[in-house]
Amino acid sequence: MTSPFVAGPPVRIPGASHGPLAGLTFAAKDLFDVAGHPTGGGNPDWARSNPIPTRHAWAVQRLLDAGATLVGKTITDEISLGILGENPFDGTPLNPKAPDRVPGGSSSGSASAVAQGLCDTALGTDTGGSVRVPASFCGLYGIRPTHGRLDLTGMLPQAPSSDTTGWFARDARTFARVSEVMLDEAIPAALPLRLVVAVDAFGFADPDTTEALRPMVDALTKLVSGVREDLLAPPGLSVWGRAQRTLQPYEAWQTFKAWVERDNPRLQFSVARGLTLGSAIPESERQWAALMRAEARARLAWLLPPGTILCMPTTPFPAPPRSLSLPALEPVRSRILCLAAHGGLAGFPQVSVPGAHVDGLPVGLSILGARGSDATLVAVARAMEAAR
Amino acid sequence: MTSPFVAGPPVRIPGASHGPLAGLTFAAKDLFDVAGHPTGGGNPDWARSNPIPTRHAWAVQRLLDAGATLVGKTITDEISLGILGENPFDGTPLNPKAPDRVPGGSSSGSASAVAQGLCDTALGTDTGGSVRVPASFCGLYGIRPTHGRLDLTGMLPQAPSSDTTGWFARDARTFARVSEVMLDEAIPAALPLRLVVAVDAFGFADPDTTEALRPMVDALTKLVSGVREDLLAPPGLSVWGRAQRTLQPYEAWQTFKAWVERDNPRLQFSVARGLTLGSAIPESERQWAALMRAEARARLAWLLPPGTILCMPTTPFPAPPRSLSLPALEPVRSRILCLAAHGGLAGFPQVSVPGAHVDGLPVGLSILGARGSDATLVAVARAMEAAR
Repeated sequence: MTSPFVAGPPVRIPGASHGPLAGLTFAAKDLFDVAGHPTGGGNPDWARSNPIPTRHAWAVQRLLDAGATLVGKTITDEISLGILGENPFDGTPLNPKAPDRVPGGSSSGSASAVAQGLCDTALGTDTGGSVRVPASFCGLYGIRPTHGRLDLTGMLPQAPSSDTTGWFARDARTFARVSEVMLDEAIPAALPLRLVVAVDAFGFADPDTTEALRPMVDALTKLVSGVREDLLAPPGLSVWGRAQRTLQPYEAWQTFKAWVERDNPRLQFSVARGLTLGSAIPESERQWAALMRAEARARLAWLLPPGTILCMPTTPFPAPPRSLSLPALEPVRSRILCLAAHGGLAGFPQVSVPGAHVDGLPVGLSILGARGSDATLVAVARAMEAAR
Repeated sequence: MTSPFVAGPPVRIPGASHGPLAGLTFAAKDLFDVAGHPTGGGNPDWARSNPIPTRHAWAVQRLLDAGATLVGKTITDEISLGILGENPFDGTPLNPKAPDRVPGGSSSGSASAVAQGLCDTALGTDTGGSVRVPASFCGLYGIRPTHGRLDLTGMLPQAPSSDTTGWFARDARTFARVSEVMLDEAIPAALPLRLVVAVDAFGFADPDTTEALRPMVDALTKLVSGVREDLLAPPGLSVWGRAQRTLQPYEAWQTFKAWVERDNPRLQFSVARGLTLGSAIPESERQWAALMRAEARARLAWLLPPGTILCMPTTPFPAPPRSLSLPALEPVRSRILCLAAHGGLAGFPQVSVPGAHVDGLPVGLSILGARGSDATLVAVARAMEAAR
């Protein structure tokens, strides 16, 4: 099984001697700049054609300043274009909770390193699900913050209108400590009053996954004073999925076009195919998707006023097997991305909470809230752990 | 500069002790099976997922039986999908006649090895120009035989309706010796009577290339008793090019689909893009191209009755620079493929003859003849060398 860390000289940068995270260790996905080390981006031709950074990424500096010690850079899907965590160049990190399954991606190595206990927390990125999905598959706490809230300086972008920096932890206490630092906000004691159960999302998941999550939903229900069922995506999760899978590859092509056209790099076939298809998206499709994004934002703003949270399965099933053929993989990937699309589309914060299992494999429950309610979502995750 | 041979344990298989090619050495493009050695196909994931062959390819066995000694396997563009000879996994073989230029592909290593004097002849494959183009760029004799004439057993296919096995040599005498063995036919003393000068092809080439080839055309004219000018492709070389660039990628996708879908291999972006676009060719386009192929075959059959040959530039210009960006490369590749498309489309034999230079860079003159006239074309090449 492959190490979650990228090959090369060891990376170890001590954190500040005093600070709220003193004593903690962390790793950073190989999309974050660490001064003096190449930013590999999960692809040998990316590393080769980009200069070695001279400054730490904002998120790395933030954790170092708070006292956490950087202990490694972690494997990512190539240029973050993947959701399963299988990288043919750097290897596929172990999912210790499901060793014959994928770890989930693209923040595969960060999730694997935390799940294996090799560090306390780890930085990832989430554009279309890249923190939430591996958190679900590896049984971790993981956050996709409100889009635009954190400084992304020094993080390799993919689709800027969807890109976020997130992080993982094994337990809610560590998750809350790290979140306080990253969000620069205390985790509140007060909890939300109202809960929306996204019935379309629970119906979209496999029945055994929905069934496995039921006790977590019941526990969550006990923390609030009012519960109702509603649709997350009235036009359909697949329609939102299609919109995100239009906007994101289109933007990814804009991001990587200059590099691809200059260097003609080696890429996994599915990644190159995605870029090729992204380059061919008609303007009419992109305009349709932009309108759907506006509607999705409006829907979530209406569903999630301050004081209301929403719960849904993070993924429609636990981690799938490794090395699926492309025809077998495509419907699996499509379903994962449909259930994650609202994140990149609307930019609302989401925390995935571990605690359920299907046939011994972890699967996460996600909590969404209003824009800016990130700390409240972390508080909910902490309260759920305390209630167990 | 990169060796023309693939990495790995040395390959050396002595030929039969007696035979018409005794004393000659040869190399085989890494698409030909050599018993006991992996057939790499120019891609690490191809080599890994295919068994080591237990028998030599027909063409390899043919040369060994005739007394030639195999001295190595040569670099190819990935799964033969390239025309410039730049392979990011195995490296780009040196073009000794133009060290800062590409060698041409996909039979890049075979052309490079012969041009460097590392062997006397070398096997290549030509589907859309993969022997003719490197022969032109490296200043070699090279043949694309009549489609369907030679046994292709043990040769990795690409687009079976266009695939052929060809070979290179530095001088016409060696070229004739090897051709006699491969074609199983004596090279005749009698020469063709009539010559067609393909005015559209000479017009399609760069003016300095056409000018550089003029003395060769004049010399060829002296060998025949009648000369006329005519069009190779009345609908346009670009129309024939489009037909070939429809049929060939469509067939290539059929050939590699099972492997690509099973293994999701690493590929150069341009190769993966070509396969992706090949997978998306509409049936209506394919049907149009099939009709155009029928017309091209009829045109060449009418132009080239027995006793008539046609001459044209092999390539529209000498070898282009290495490492062009994709936007700069695409028009270069398109023009090369337009001037080579008739080969894969119609299946007529063609020999590229060296002897011209543009700014010191080699460029070849091609001689085409009727189906089955391969030996006559080799005789013409020999007569041109003798007349110099």
